[in-house]
Amino acid sequence: MTRPTRIDFLAGAEGAWRIERITAVIGPTLPDAERLDLRTGPPDAARPPLGAPGWRLSGIVGHLRYTTRDERAILSDRQEGLGRPNSTRAALIPIRKSPAWWDLAQDERRAILEDRSRHIAIGLEYLPAVARRLHHSRDLGEPFDFLTWFEFAPEAETAFDELLARLRASPEWDYVDREVDVRLYD
Amino acid sequence: MTRPTRIDFLAGAEGAWRIERITAVIGPTLPDAERLDLRTGPPDAARPPLGAPGWRLSGIVGHLRYTTRDERAILSDRQEGLGRPNSTRAALIPIRKSPAWWDLAQDERRAILEDRSRHIAIGLEYLPAVARRLHHSRDLGEPFDFLTWFEFAPEAETAFDELLARLRASPEWDYVDREVDVRLYD
Repeated sequence: MTRPTRIDFLAGAEGAWRIERITAVIGPTLPDAERLDLRTGPPDAARPPLGAPGWRLSGIVGHLRYTTRDERAILSDRQEGLGRPNSTRAALIPIRKSPAWWDLAQDERRAILEDRSRHIAIGLEYLPAVARRLHHSRDLGEPFDFLTWFEFAPEAETAFDELLARLRASPEWDYVDREVDVRLYD
Repeated sequence: MTRPTRIDFLAGAEGAWRIERITAVIGPTLPDAERLDLRTGPPDAARPPLGAPGWRLSGIVGHLRYTTRDERAILSDRQEGLGRPNSTRAALIPIRKSPAWWDLAQDERRAILEDRSRHIAIGLEYLPAVARRLHHSRDLGEPFDFLTWFEFAPEAETAFDELLARLRASPEWDYVDREVDVRLYD
């Protein structure tokens, strides 16, 4: 694995993706914007300047935090990468978890995430249709702890909404204290 | 738990701690300096300016990554905080782990760290004499992945050296590709 990579999500007047809608799921929303751009760089590079009006969220793509070897083998076998030509729909879902979550020990978080909530197993059911990449933001002092980026074909959006509904109904989501759902199209 | 905190370790002409010696354990060393200062702030604050000559290492104090609930209960019971009046000796041990380590899944890393290397159990044997705090640096794009800060009384330095020798002889250390040992006194 190479060193971690920082991804900056820049919402404003410019960008490769058009923002269809921004919905607050839990807690306050994010400001409306027309487009979203993704920039990739080393973690310690200067953050790209923010056009006004707009917002910027940043996260680190790095090592796996909860996934076991067996789960990773299945994931690697089934998942496809970002940037597929027919993936003309996307979603950015920033999430913050509560202080109670971060106070838990590693085995307690893993038990809630997978043993009780089946987070990894549920995600697997939607592969390869829904491709995704997880970004860690908490240690950067960001307003959210995680940013998940999803890409899929238009005909997979119903399945994607079902995936989100199942996760949001799980015990893990009792620990989510802010969530915004940003939908985009190419 | 409050939000994560960033700690900056600034080596140079000023600082609360005097540097006794800097030793390269694995890989290249760090430049000599007279003193070390610790600064605390939010993760996204500007990093403090670096006096020349000197060096700066930064890390995040955040949530537990491997410790289980049972281990944490024992740790909380036995450990004492930093800043004890008789802790007039300190060590800063920056470590980088190899790409092979970061390619492992969470269960594989935990198995090496504790089941095979007894990292947490060995550390427990030296509590409360050796107080320590772990800082995560990898996601900041730093040259090291972890910075561990230790404080102890002069009479505990022999025990501290034994602790390090036992950890360095463990299977986990096969995955350490850079380590520097900075010793300090008050």
